[in-house]
Amino acid sequence: MKTAIYHGNKTMTVEDVPGPVIEQPTDAIVDIEYAGVCGSDLWTYRGQGAQAPCRIGHEFVGIVREVGADVSSVKPGDWVMVPFRWSDGTCEYCRRGLETSCVHGGFWSREIPWAGQAEAARIPYADGTLVKAYDDGHRPDDAVIPSLLTLTDVFTTGYHAAVSAGVGDGDTVIVVGDGAVGLSAIMAAKLLGAARVINAGSTHEERHALARTFGADDIISTRGEDAVADIRSLTDGAMASRVLECVGSAQSFSTAIDMAAPGGTVGYVGLPHGVSIDAKRLFFSNIRIAGGMSPAHHYIADLVPSVLSGSINPGFVYNRTYTLDQIGQAYDDMDNRRVIKPLIRLV
Amino acid sequence: MKTAIYHGNKTMTVEDVPGPVIEQPTDAIVDIEYAGVCGSDLWTYRGQGAQAPCRIGHEFVGIVREVGADVSSVKPGDWVMVPFRWSDGTCEYCRRGLETSCVHGGFWSREIPWAGQAEAARIPYADGTLVKAYDDGHRPDDAVIPSLLTLTDVFTTGYHAAVSAGVGDGDTVIVVGDGAVGLSAIMAAKLLGAARVINAGSTHEERHALARTFGADDIISTRGEDAVADIRSLTDGAMASRVLECVGSAQSFSTAIDMAAPGGTVGYVGLPHGVSIDAKRLFFSNIRIAGGMSPAHHYIADLVPSVLSGSINPGFVYNRTYTLDQIGQAYDDMDNRRVIKPLIRLV
Repeated sequence: MKTAIYHGNKTMTVEDVPGPVIEQPTDAIVDIEYAGVCGSDLWTYRGQGAQAPCRIGHEFVGIVREVGADVSSVKPGDWVMVPFRWSDGTCEYCRRGLETSCVHGGFWSREIPWAGQAEAARIPYADGTLVKAYDDGHRPDDAVIPSLLTLTDVFTTGYHAAVSAGVGDGDTVIVVGDGAVGLSAIMAAKLLGAARVINAGSTHEERHALARTFGADDIISTRGEDAVADIRSLTDGAMASRVLECVGSAQSFSTAIDMAAPGGTVGYVGLPHGVSIDAKRLFFSNIRIAGGMSPAHHYIADLVPSVLSGSINPGFVYNRTYTLDQIGQAYDDMDNRRVIKPLIRLV
Repeated sequence: MKTAIYHGNKTMTVEDVPGPVIEQPTDAIVDIEYAGVCGSDLWTYRGQGAQAPCRIGHEFVGIVREVGADVSSVKPGDWVMVPFRWSDGTCEYCRRGLETSCVHGGFWSREIPWAGQAEAARIPYADGTLVKAYDDGHRPDDAVIPSLLTLTDVFTTGYHAAVSAGVGDGDTVIVVGDGAVGLSAIMAAKLLGAARVINAGSTHEERHALARTFGADDIISTRGEDAVADIRSLTDGAMASRVLECVGSAQSFSTAIDMAAPGGTVGYVGLPHGVSIDAKRLFFSNIRIAGGMSPAHHYIADLVPSVLSGSINPGFVYNRTYTLDQIGQAYDDMDNRRVIKPLIRLV
């Protein structure tokens, strides 16, 4: 089978490797139909993530080819979503909906070589990991597949920011960041009842349009202190009780804290890079920090109906489609912000 | 009237100054009966708080002597508790129970000279600030007055840690710190339904006894990595979903984070001194940070019945009583940990 391999120095290749086989009775083999390129893949591409050489990619969907003897929830032929971490589905953390902390869980291309930007993968703990779009396992319409693909990571990550910040009916919500996670957070905030969503730090015209499509009521292009001043002006000094930090840089995190009203919560999901929070900045105003790595698996089942009904279309974040052989171009385009998020099509 | 004055270099004096008068129609004058010495007074005493020379003290109770024309909730002769910040009682933040962020609020001995370790004080926004023990304003029994005094700061601060961490029925709770706030947090956690409270970082035998009285089920004397290892052992590796940080130092905060189970919350109320939180340490386990400066006023009314009925006795944190003239001795004893928390008696 073919797989993408990252070699460091922003160099991607596509190579032939032996395909996956069932190793444990709880495994499944999935033939991958579509994969996304994630912001955290980009950190790796830029030399700040996994050690090269490595396979790469962790948001993917496809068809079950084969299952181990102990797998009962999926069967060959089922169309499935694969969250960005696998999980056993039975441990204490899985049971309480924090599958990212599963005691047997792991990351694609870390504990095992299999990853999403490839033709197939071995799935550990298939019953705890895979999620079907339909109970009978049938394949959804092509039109909604990109949106279902977002549930494996990017949309459920934005959604986790909104849930962690406690977004509810009538709230004013600030979303910091204009990447695919930020756009997802805008849509998630609206889905959770936000009355007004302000997107901060959006500097590209093309992204403004998408932010509006996703539900942003106001967009500000400034960053740092200027952005805080703009939010103060837009909210008549009230700032917002729900701020969603969707970048992960020191500046964006700091800006998010400054935008929070006293008693408010910063819901953050951008993988923090060099983010150090001075607790004294939180103390006097009782600002909360909540979020982290999204338990995507926990949210998927709740969100599938909204996608299948067409009431949300988070798949719009994939604004260009590539073949697996074009993977190098996909990363280069994303790295240079010529594309918001690449979709890799394998069928 | 007499007031304590802090001069820097751990020097306290008691001096005669002009007494308070009504300046605004919303003011009241309170003759102070009892005052506490707070951990944050100790930061000042050690040169890391307010600028000397200054009056000092912010947890106090007493009798209303006089009220301004617009004051309607208290009258001369009423026995009242005075929270560690004043608040107008009408702004958006007061209405939502975050009186510490009141738009007209302030700290004793900062925006105005009046403070708690003195014979009297002028109280701005008396209607929004003062809380009676009884609706008719009568004086409670001497036996419960120290416990009512704790509601002005120390107990409601420990309570805020527990509320912020989401302590509820059946929880295992770790309290980091053996000061008066930590002891209060132990009692607060039990009041909120905790099944098991582990007190970490308690190094004094005398404090162990008090921690047990306040509700601690287990006590560990270690700090830092050793304490984390002890908690791992005591909880069979589960750690705790509710960790209450009641110190405010970099080490105690770091230890508290390490003691939190995935998905857990560190409720913190220790005024942070040099605490910098690496967001990446929170990210992968979805650890939340919540808390800050306690809205004491918000909690007092709810807690008064438990104190008056004797079901909680947080006043035990005051384990030595001093006259105002002995204020220097009180600070010196607290600074050298010869006393947990001094009670200043003015009647």
